[in-house]
Amino acid sequence: MSETLGSVLARAARQHARAEAVVDGETRWSYAELDARVQAFDAALDELGLEQGDVVAVLAQNSAEHLVTWLAIPRSGRVLNDLNYRLAPAELEFILGDSGAKALVVDDGFLEVGQRLASTVDGIEHLIHAGAGPTPDGCSSFEALSTSGAARALESLDPDALAGIFYTGGTTGLPKGAMLSHRNLIQNAKHMLIALGYDESDTYIHAAPMFHLADGASLFGITWVGGKHVTQRAFTPASWLALVESERATRGMLVPTMVAMVLEEPSLAERDISSLRSVMYGASPMPTALLARAMQSIPCDWYQGYGMTEAAPLVSMLTAREHRAGIAGAGQVADRLRSSGRPIVGVEVEVRGPDGAPCAEGEPGEIYVRGANVMRGYWNRPAETAQALVDDGWYRTGDAAWMDADGYLYIVDRIKDMIISGGENVYSTEVENAIYRHEAVLECAVFGIPHPRLGEQVHAAVVTRAGAAVDADDLVEHCRGLIAGYKLPRSIEFLDALPKSGAGKILKRDLRAPFWQGHERQVS
Amino acid sequence: MSETLGSVLARAARQHARAEAVVDGETRWSYAELDARVQAFDAALDELGLEQGDVVAVLAQNSAEHLVTWLAIPRSGRVLNDLNYRLAPAELEFILGDSGAKALVVDDGFLEVGQRLASTVDGIEHLIHAGAGPTPDGCSSFEALSTSGAARALESLDPDALAGIFYTGGTTGLPKGAMLSHRNLIQNAKHMLIALGYDESDTYIHAAPMFHLADGASLFGITWVGGKHVTQRAFTPASWLALVESERATRGMLVPTMVAMVLEEPSLAERDISSLRSVMYGASPMPTALLARAMQSIPCDWYQGYGMTEAAPLVSMLTAREHRAGIAGAGQVADRLRSSGRPIVGVEVEVRGPDGAPCAEGEPGEIYVRGANVMRGYWNRPAETAQALVDDGWYRTGDAAWMDADGYLYIVDRIKDMIISGGENVYSTEVENAIYRHEAVLECAVFGIPHPRLGEQVHAAVVTRAGAAVDADDLVEHCRGLIAGYKLPRSIEFLDALPKSGAGKILKRDLRAPFWQGHERQVS
Repeated sequence: MSETLGSVLARAARQHARAEAVVDGETRWSYAELDARVQAFDAALDELGLEQGDVVAVLAQNSAEHLVTWLAIPRSGRVLNDLNYRLAPAELEFILGDSGAKALVVDDGFLEVGQRLASTVDGIEHLIHAGAGPTPDGCSSFEALSTSGAARALESLDPDALAGIFYTGGTTGLPKGAMLSHRNLIQNAKHMLIALGYDESDTYIHAAPMFHLADGASLFGITWVGGKHVTQRAFTPASWLALVESERATRGMLVPTMVAMVLEEPSLAERDISSLRSVMYGASPMPTALLARAMQSIPCDWYQGYGMTEAAPLVSMLTAREHRAGIAGAGQVADRLRSSGRPIVGVEVEVRGPDGAPCAEGEPGEIYVRGANVMRGYWNRPAETAQALVDDGWYRTGDAAWMDADGYLYIVDRIKDMIISGGENVYSTEVENAIYRHEAVLECAVFGIPHPRLGEQVHAAVVTRAGAAVDADDLVEHCRGLIAGYKLPRSIEFLDALPKSGAGKILKRDLRAPFWQGHERQVS
Repeated sequence: MSETLGSVLARAARQHARAEAVVDGETRWSYAELDARVQAFDAALDELGLEQGDVVAVLAQNSAEHLVTWLAIPRSGRVLNDLNYRLAPAELEFILGDSGAKALVVDDGFLEVGQRLASTVDGIEHLIHAGAGPTPDGCSSFEALSTSGAARALESLDPDALAGIFYTGGTTGLPKGAMLSHRNLIQNAKHMLIALGYDESDTYIHAAPMFHLADGASLFGITWVGGKHVTQRAFTPASWLALVESERATRGMLVPTMVAMVLEEPSLAERDISSLRSVMYGASPMPTALLARAMQSIPCDWYQGYGMTEAAPLVSMLTAREHRAGIAGAGQVADRLRSSGRPIVGVEVEVRGPDGAPCAEGEPGEIYVRGANVMRGYWNRPAETAQALVDDGWYRTGDAAWMDADGYLYIVDRIKDMIISGGENVYSTEVENAIYRHEAVLECAVFGIPHPRLGEQVHAAVVTRAGAAVDADDLVEHCRGLIAGYKLPRSIEFLDALPKSGAGKILKRDLRAPFWQGHERQVS
């Protein structure tokens, strides 16, 4: 049972009963209170007739109640299906149908969507309202269910039992549900604790949406050591800074877009953020110029994490020490800032060629990952599972990278995002890094569009910084000094904003689609 | 495979190839060199005809070669049986027969014993000599086997495959072999990394014998992060201090007896030991007075670990922060120095009464432990295994303790060492703590001896500090102010030294035996 998630909160409740567990606006619960609510909600799921293996979905912003769902749903063998609330109703409908959820927890903001979903998706038997308003007809009250005071003893579970189904961003095709077991999430929590050293004196801000594992990754680790959770309902840079100051937060996780927003926020200079010990960023690469500004303006330990839902999620880490050395140094040490660090303790990584054989140092190939954190497979997708999990437990990530002599992993692209132009492989991140080094650029995305002779041509979508301007020719000139001629963008479009996924990843799929209508693009 | 031990060295060799891995006198190997030797020795075991599941025993002082055996023997599925070299030949013979070892690795100091064992124990087919001298007839040369240069690819293993059989001190009865799997040792290594925060800048001194898991516990953790091992062949306090100074060692593990010896060592004042970040002590409780002196004279982070071979071994930890607070504070915070800290992340602990039901706060009972670190059972001992592993994976430790409201574990005794005197339970450690607070006392052991009326009477064996003296009456008077009357020693014997196990534990069994000849003592 030590490899089941119920033991995580049990330890905190036993050792830190009186310590604050979660802060959500005016709400402050100790670990004893959190544990009581989790046990009560777990017992309530029994009462509702939900059994081991039954799926309970959640559609909600970050909140104390949202934290309760993560701790309570898997506790006795039920399965969490936390939904990306940025998806369209049709997508949510697809996922709920696919996961076979029997209950859905919604907060006030998603009540209407939830009611529609409950009526259109066949299997949903219970709609649970976790909101401040009155409980609508046809709903159960989350507050009532989680404050009944019922105790629920922990039972023994198979460590390989399913704890959650996490639908992957799916930048191509239909969303797939990555099946994560108790062991997967427990091992990732241990890996996070080893890599980041969370302890009971830590206060962690949930700023990125909890439905995404980039944030969820810290949820169990922080709970295990008895640290404090602070939940932010909807991220704004101003409120994030205010929350760091008022709660003396020590730890945070931001995606690069959020970092950029905090750096542009005028109140940054006025807020006391000296309590911050570390900020981790991840989910997408961060341009070096942005990183340098971040390390200067938000002084703390900076960590970069690379991972994916299928790995529960952490795979590699660029440590605070490596960040400091990279910013202060030159040559190879500075280059490492462009890497995603090294495979963490507990996770094996290999870079392999198309034939499955390991690549030599410096040679790009596909990242394969193995570890007790790697998912059991995709829910009801035996074919995709067989394609993703190969050779005795290796997971094929679909990411292209090379590894240097010291084990640093340089991610060059999604295999599917690699541009093949005139027979040359062009890694879009390399082009993006060059473009980002122009001071007028706020964000960019590089991808291939059809070209009659080259097959694909390098195309860039660019958002400029407020008040700054640059034209396409100047931007190409700027890049010419940095990358080879065949990698230069042949076309550039300027946009007001880039489309993003729930996790803040730029959706190249959406940018790419209009160019390929009527064309056939070959992807491996 | 990430849950197999081969992945531990593989990571270090990939990420820290040029870093120093081990220092043993004049010997200095990088991780690339260590990995080459481990692979070569692993391949050599194939050549010798040893297969997955075959047991390879080791009888040797700490050394670079000893480290190779730990990393190489389990690497491809063979089973390590590291022997306590302080045992008598008859005991070693028993263990080797019991484990069914097919090969035995010995160093120069144990060559003769090894040769005798190889001739008397049936199953031993190979005697491997890991020494500086010439290879004797009938032996293979460890140096030749481990420098052949043969590469050996890692193969996939079941994480639950046996990695080692570790014979427990057995303060009662015959030694039993605790079966530890790859998963057990891997999980303990993660727990050590979480609890102690080892990283690549650490240099760890192996001072306690490597055959004991109190030292072995750090072996995989330090390797995993690419830290440096320094091996000390035979512990003396002077050479330990010299090694800390010359190698700028950062981490150490000492049993309390060794701490006491270091504190008495005259060169302590002259040595520069400022490189030390932490010293962990364990394997037996440490009197508070000794601890206070240690923290003053050896300034670094002090950790207490509580565990046992069957838990691979770490169960609970009193952290450096708790040590500092305890020494500086009073009341409950100071009392915690007498505790064994709190269950670590990854290990569940319950204190249960004789009926198996959990005890209330403060009520003593038996410590039960559960986690992915807990052994698979005792080798070829189904009855003892069934007694030790109960209720879905809980391990009954045989240690008596109570837990306070914050989860601190106060170990009161071995269940078997509890003295029942006139119907009252007397926990020997409580009496020992009182005796230790007398400044003339270097070491003591308290146990029950036959008494016609009381059943047992409290008896103390005491060793006084060099140059100090105290008589029995004064010592009893000293205790009278500290503990209840029925707990006072009714008899005291003064000895020159106390008998110890290989791990430095005082052998009460040997002290107790002469008193009980012709008597029958009831143990639960």
